Parts: sequence; C-alpha cells; structure tokens
Amino acid sequence: MSERTPGVPGVVVGVDIGGTKVLAGVVEPDGTVTSTALRTTPGRRVATSQVEDALVEAVLEAAVGRPLAAVGVAAAGFVDSAGERVMFAPHLPWQGEPLRDLLEARLGCRVVLDNDANCAAVAEWTFGAARGAGTALMMTLGTGIGGAVLLGGRVLHGANGMAGEFGHMQVVPQGRSCECGRSGCWEQYSSGNALVRDARALMAEQPSVLEEMCGGNPERITGPMVTAAAEEGDLVARRAFASVGDWLGVGAANLVAALDPERVVIGGGVSAAGDKLLDPARAALARTLVGAEHRTVPALVAAHLGPAAGLVGAAQSARLPRSGAGAEVPVA
Amino acid sequence: MSERTPGVPGVVVGVDIGGTKVLAGVVEPDGTVTSTALRTTPGRRVATSQVEDALVEAVLEAAVGRPLAAVGVAAAGFVDSAGERVMFAPHLPWQGEPLRDLLEARLGCRVVLDNDANCAAVAEWTFGAARGAGTALMMTLGTGIGGAVLLGGRVLHGANGMAGEFGHMQVVPQGRSCECGRSGCWEQYSSGNALVRDARALMAEQPSVLEEMCGGNPERITGPMVTAAAEEGDLVARRAFASVGDWLGVGAANLVAALDPERVVIGGGVSAAGDKLLDPARAALARTLVGAEHRTVPALVAAHLGPAAGLVGAAQSARLPRSGAGAEVPVA
Repeated sequence: MSERTPGVPGVVVGVDIGGTKVLAGVVEPDGTVTSTALRTTPGRRVATSQVEDALVEAVLEAAVGRPLAAVGVAAAGFVDSAGERVMFAPHLPWQGEPLRDLLEARLGCRVVLDNDANCAAVAEWTFGAARGAGTALMMTLGTGIGGAVLLGGRVLHGANGMAGEFGHMQVVPQGRSCECGRSGCWEQYSSGNALVRDARALMAEQPSVLEEMCGGNPERITGPMVTAAAEEGDLVARRAFASVGDWLGVGAANLVAALDPERVVIGGGVSAAGDKLLDPARAALARTLVGAEHRTVPALVAAHLGPAAGLVGAAQSARLPRSGAGAEVPVA
Repeated sequence: MSERTPGVPGVVVGVDIGGTKVLAGVVEPDGTVTSTALRTTPGRRVATSQVEDALVEAVLEAAVGRPLAAVGVAAAGFVDSAGERVMFAPHLPWQGEPLRDLLEARLGCRVVLDNDANCAAVAEWTFGAARGAGTALMMTLGTGIGGAVLLGGRVLHGANGMAGEFGHMQVVPQGRSCECGRSGCWEQYSSGNALVRDARALMAEQPSVLEEMCGGNPERITGPMVTAAAEEGDLVARRAFASVGDWLGVGAANLVAALDPERVVIGGGVSAAGDKLLDPARAALARTLVGAEHRTVPALVAAHLGPAAGLVGAAQSARLPRSGAGAEVPVA
C-alpha cells in the first residue's frame, strides 16, 4: 500500500483546495511531501475554470516537469459519493460540474477527488494517529467540526457522499443557533468558533490576559490567542478549553455508542492545544459512554499530521485502486 | 445468497434467545420459517448449561430429526466482536463463556452467534425493508432502543461488538435519568417505555380512553394499550406517539448526519403503530437533518418482518460465509 504502483512512472501529487488557498505537493509513498506549490484561491464568484486553472498550475509547479502518475484533490466542500463532483462548497464556485473528468482531461492522468476531512482521515490512517485501526473516527475542529468514519482504512462516504457531517448533530434541544439554520448543533459547543465565543463570555466574569492580547476589543480574539493564553495558564482560556473539550467528549461518546470504533482522532487547528483540549474530552467520553464496564473505551488522540494532512491523504487515495463508485463493500 | 449451500445437507435453524423465551425455527433460503419450537428461558440465576440445554432442545425439536447444516443464534445481550461469546446480558446468565464453540460441539454443526438487533437487521436487509440498501440503519423500538449499522448487508460490529447501541446516545443534557446510570439518553424519549411514560403524564392534562383501559390505574398502562388507544383516535395516545415519533426523528437525523444511509428501518414492538409513529419521525428527520437541500433525505420505513426477524437473520448469517473475526473490510 505504501509502495509506488509498479510500472507506473511519474509522481503522485496531492492538492488541498480551500476557500483561501490551493496547496499542492508531491507525496512520496511513505507520506513525505517533497515539493510544494501554493496559489491563492480565486474566490467563489468567479468562473469555475479560473479555480481549475489555479489548481492545475499548482500541480504542475509542484511536479517540476516530472510526469504525473496520479493526482488526488482534497476539496473543502461536499463531494458526491462517486467522487466525481463538488456538489456545493461555501467558498468555491463548483456546483456539480464533472470536475474529476475535467481535471483528468487537463492533467492527462488519473484524478481522485474527495472531501478534505475524508482525505485527512485517510492520511492519519495510513501514516498518522489512526494507523492500522479497524474502525476509527476522525473529528476535525476548525471553524466548525468536520469528520470522517474510517472502516479498515477506507472512508465511509454514504449515499450522498455526506457521511461524517458530525458538526450538525444536535446535542442541545433549542440550543445555540447555528449558521446552518438549525439550533443546538454540536459545533456550536465544540469548535474554534465555540472556543472564542466561550472565552469572550468568560472574560466578563474574571480578569484574563486575553484583554491585553485583543487590545481591549473582544471581537478581535482568535482561536490561536485562546490557545496561547491557555499555555500561559490563563484561567479564562483554560475554562474555555475545558468547556469545548467536555462537549467534544460528550459528542464523541454518542458516536462511539453508535459505531464502537477502536480509536478517535482529533485534528484541526483547535487540536494544537493538545491535552488542554483532550483531557477534558477523555473525561467526558468515559463519563458519558454507555457500557464502559463491558468494553474498552477507545483512545482519544491528537492527529499526527499537520495542515498537510489533506493533500497527503488525497495523494494516498490517488495511489490506491479505485473503489466501485458509491458502492459500500461488506464489513465484518 | 438465497440458495442452500451446494453439497451441504440438512436444515438451517435460527434461534432467538431472550429473557423470557427461546424461539427456534427452520429457515428456508427464501426466509420462510417452516417449523418452530418454543422453550421458556430458565432465567439469569441458573447454571449457563441449563440455558444451553433449552437452546439445544429447541433447535432439535424444530429440526424434527433432520440433520443440521448450520445454526444461527440471536441473543439479547452484548456479543463480542468475534461472535464467540455473550459478554453480558441483563436477563441471561452468560458472562463471556465460549458459547459458540460449546454449541458447535453439542450440535455438531457450524454455529453463528450475534446480538438480536444485529440479526433482525440482517433479516430486514435480506428479505425485508432494508433490502439491497448500500448503507442502512435499523432502530428497534421496544423497552429501549436497539439498533444496527448495515454496510452492504453486513453488520458493523465495531471493536467490542457494541456498535449500534443507539439507545444511550445523549440527546438532552441533564435530561431524564436512565437505567444505565446516566441521563438524557435517547431511549428515555423514544421507546416503548417513553411512550407509556408520556401517556401517563398526558392523562393528567386531558381525558383519555386509557383511563378505562387501565382500570383507573395508570401503572397498568402498556405500550400495546397506547397503540390501541391511538387507533381509536384518543388524543392522549396520539400526543404520546407524536412526542416519541418526534424524538425518533431527531435522533435519526443525528445518525443520518454521521453515516448518510440510504434507508432507515424502524422495527420493534412500538413500530406496530405504523405511521402514527413514523409520520412525526419523518417530519422531525427532515426538519433536523443538515444539508437537506443538497442531499436525498433517506426513506424512514417500518420493518417488514415481525417478531421472527431475529431468528431469520441469525439463520441467514449462519448460511453466509463467515467473515474474519472482528475484521472490518474496506468500504467505498
């Protein structure tokens, strides 16, 4: 699985395309990224071909003239279950165009397309924190919560390619209102946005180094500021992490009850806080999970790969034999 | 899959063993049950061999002297991921004995062991309401909520064999207290017990035929009574079903967000109420599910097979090639 396909010459490139940047890299069979190229994402209100141009340019620059064996694309949006199209993305212009085929025609090689959280999960299973797990869950805490279900190292895509949308599971009836139009969604309690919101609210209750950090304007507080403050031992920041971590564990317990995974991997920007986030999450998981006396409570661990996880996983998927489009294969 | 294994003579028997009875039946390749036998479960505080005796007797009586090709056992308890042992069951004495091997030695044929909800799901996938679905979820509403995750017709067992324990997912923080020792568990809001509890509470608010049915003693109200009252148009009973159905849809939406199944099948005693339960569940699913504008909302349907689903599914699993013990095979 980690060896280059015999007889196929050239390099495998992974590309991560988000709302602000396009990052491409040559990925070696051992997961090492040896050559990268960066472009700015042209935006959402442009012709789709402009975004495809940026993507193709980044791939070719990363390859530095070497032939392409395969390209994997990790996109920040909903990808259909067949891996052919980006159906919708909040910061990209695609709306169901046959993107995979368009890119195969332009790049002259096999292209594999998947959601960025799914790609990151594949990377963690192959090279990182989920390595070798029979069943694993990955949650990516950034602005919201992304996620993926891994079964034997393969991502469960589901009927619409939308499996793993953990962030909008309802954890509080009539709870905090969510950008999705509903309320009480998990990511309103456990995410980068939730962390910042909690810190702002707690600043009203006790002094905090965050006041200085934000220049007296709480609207300027960011997730990394809260992480830095927590590292300094700031109580407001620590309480914000305790709350976000507790909710992370409560939501994880629900998914563990349903899927009984061997491991739960936490990635995304917020996970940079490490045990300040994960310790309260572990406590809440053990407290909330049913049947803990009759089971092994799964390890809840930080992702190993950093921001390159998406492109590494996309390249890894491009290296693997393609699965039947949308088909779910039997599991034990 | 529905043909008898060539060269293997004899009948395939399924057995469902619950807290009160042991029901065995010869199951034909098309799912028909042609001969049954019933025993009383000896209880929880007896030697395990007594329960095994009852099980073996029921199997042999159902087979009526014909040789056994294979036997499938559906048990009301936690079965380990290898399908070898009942680790714990609230109404059965087993606690991790090598039950599958013991039964194989006594019956002289291949034995397959699984949790009863998992077996019912296999039966629904092969012969019933989940037939042919790529990914499907089954929820069994009885006293509590049992469940199963079906991927390509195979049950996801998980690391401890405990996948599908949907009933104890937390839906209300600090909510109704649960027998499991935690609070706010889904089955406290959507199950046979919840239905009866809701009906009792609503009787204090308005008149109901349930008062006569229970002889003036609300403690005597049962789930089937509430179903009968709802069929008569009783408003208390209808409101109880509306609440249980609404919570069924809310919880289902969480699982659909996570797993994106093609179909959601509702079985168990409470599902006998049909659309009185399912219509409010469908409305809540559509209302609560994220991204409904970018996806097909899965059909939420009643199970087709009745109380025999467990033994039929157990027999079907016994007919199939055994999967690797505990191994999860890649999915698309």
